Amino acid sequence: MSTPVDVPVDPAAADRAQAVVALGGGHGLHASLSALRRLVDDLTVDELTAIVTVADNGGSSGRLRGEFGVLPPGDLRMALAALCGDDQWGDTWARVLQHRFAGNGEMRGHVVGNLLIVGLWELLGDHVDALDWVGRLLGAKGRVLPMALTPMDITAEVRGLRADDPDALTTVRGQVEVATTDGVIDSINLDPADPQACPEAVAAVEAADWVLLGPGSWFSSVIPHLMVPALRDALVRTSARVVVNLNLAEQAGETGGFGPADHLAVLAEHAPELVVHTVLADRESVGDGLDELAHVVAAYGAKLVVDDVAVGDGTPRHDPEKLAAAYERIIAAG
Amino acid sequence: MSTPVDVPVDPAAADRAQAVVALGGGHGLHASLSALRRLVDDLTVDELTAIVTVADNGGSSGRLRGEFGVLPPGDLRMALAALCGDDQWGDTWARVLQHRFAGNGEMRGHVVGNLLIVGLWELLGDHVDALDWVGRLLGAKGRVLPMALTPMDITAEVRGLRADDPDALTTVRGQVEVATTDGVIDSINLDPADPQACPEAVAAVEAADWVLLGPGSWFSSVIPHLMVPALRDALVRTSARVVVNLNLAEQAGETGGFGPADHLAVLAEHAPELVVHTVLADRESVGDGLDELAHVVAAYGAKLVVDDVAVGDGTPRHDPEKLAAAYERIIAAG
Repeated sequence: MSTPVDVPVDPAAADRAQAVVALGGGHGLHASLSALRRLVDDLTVDELTAIVTVADNGGSSGRLRGEFGVLPPGDLRMALAALCGDDQWGDTWARVLQHRFAGNGEMRGHVVGNLLIVGLWELLGDHVDALDWVGRLLGAKGRVLPMALTPMDITAEVRGLRADDPDALTTVRGQVEVATTDGVIDSINLDPADPQACPEAVAAVEAADWVLLGPGSWFSSVIPHLMVPALRDALVRTSARVVVNLNLAEQAGETGGFGPADHLAVLAEHAPELVVHTVLADRESVGDGLDELAHVVAAYGAKLVVDDVAVGDGTPRHDPEKLAAAYERIIAAG
Repeated sequence: MSTPVDVPVDPAAADRAQAVVALGGGHGLHASLSALRRLVDDLTVDELTAIVTVADNGGSSGRLRGEFGVLPPGDLRMALAALCGDDQWGDTWARVLQHRFAGNGEMRGHVVGNLLIVGLWELLGDHVDALDWVGRLLGAKGRVLPMALTPMDITAEVRGLRADDPDALTTVRGQVEVATTDGVIDSINLDPADPQACPEAVAAVEAADWVLLGPGSWFSSVIPHLMVPALRDALVRTSARVVVNLNLAEQAGETGGFGPADHLAVLAEHAPELVVHTVLADRESVGDGLDELAHVVAAYGAKLVVDDVAVGDGTPRHDPEKLAAAYERIIAAG
């Protein structure tokens, strides 16, 4: 087990800028990207790619997906906004993209950036080209790609939903439904099971120096990447070092009652052949679960880095500066 | 009466770039701006401002106005698109702004640029600032301003709607309703009668060298500017030379049966104190109405320029290149 104090610096790795791929969705990926943009600024990272879950079926994204049969744009939009340029231009357009209509009419709840992305998809007919245009609009510090080119649903096998048989598995369908289930999730799958992978996302994983998984809604935003066959193959095959960034807390619903070690165990069950290089956990969040986590990480063949990465105000939020420093130390250690 | 052949060139006017303000709305203003952007390119015009009618109550604009109580964005968006930069960047974002959602759901008929503009208005809380941001996005060759800062309705006094009394006046309310009336419009008004003018629009008129009125839906897009008291005052007061660009044809509904001279007569009735410097008419469209038009223009104290400005395929559309050449000759003549 390593801590920031005793992470050795690998001079070769520190000498050149790194290609980093971050996988996730929603607020978790936003947090990771808010840290990684700082590593682009200080030239530690020269190629940053976000690969985003596209299984959302709720809110503005769910409505647009239902109306147009497109990928749900919300998590893509949020990732793009997280990478906006530092100047007034990037900041303003990011705020425009994130703006949600209020009122009581038909537009209520829709988000400007979601509509812009769907418009670009319709107009250009190419998911990646359209997202690259939004990236250029923002002066984004990295590229944002979908994990697949076809919309999909997450299904979960959930225990504890049947009063007559608490051990029976029930299939729960839909990202929103999975994220908010009252039961205990045993496993997830995608429907369709073999969605068309995004070639640029697969290529980015293959060419990466580092791949970051998490933080984020574990079953509905992080693990789905490993269920896209072509992306999973790339993640298993890549020479990139895979870092798993654990959540700061359980998430009511999908990971209710889960500690850090449970998160990792679930990941290992879903992708046993994935080689994890480093597991990053927050010191305070691990608390007295450190021994158990260290045991699971060791069994997984990975290095454990316990660092101070939370905002520290009692909410389960990563501090971008602290997380950036932690990532930087992990990259420097190689 | 002048024709392009004998328009004398004013060397002083030709020597320096001109500040031009174009007033109108919809497709007519789009045509005028498509010509004027060429005069920005060749440095004849160094300051181009479009002042746009904001009385639309139909389509995507009408829905957004109804839902959010904002100015109808459609004509503003179309004017901005007409001024987009010449490169792939400007062209692509203009096409995105103009993209209209198809499908059968709640978004059907909405236009991406309308939603973007309304989002910017909500976010920034300033009409002009928001439109300037869209202009910067497009690399626009000029500024686009609303003719007023409060949404309004056009009302028209219309003759011929009552079978029992064909001479009776009926009040028709709403831009769409006025534009498509079966009767003959006698006059229009705004409701509210004294909407808050846009200070930047008033200032642009005051500082202009040239003000262009038309082409466009005469009662619902061109004349409304003259009914905004502060804007009308500026138009009467300005030292700018006012050019009236007549429509190529009558418009079924609001100007059914109107010839070029009738358009001008209606304008004079609505704003008798407006000093018009030049009236531009298309040769083919005037046809054998030339004598009548020359008479009305002379009575108006203006110079008549008859030029070849139509596409010439039988549709009543201005050719941007020909119209640009006509504007350039008018400006050079001073």
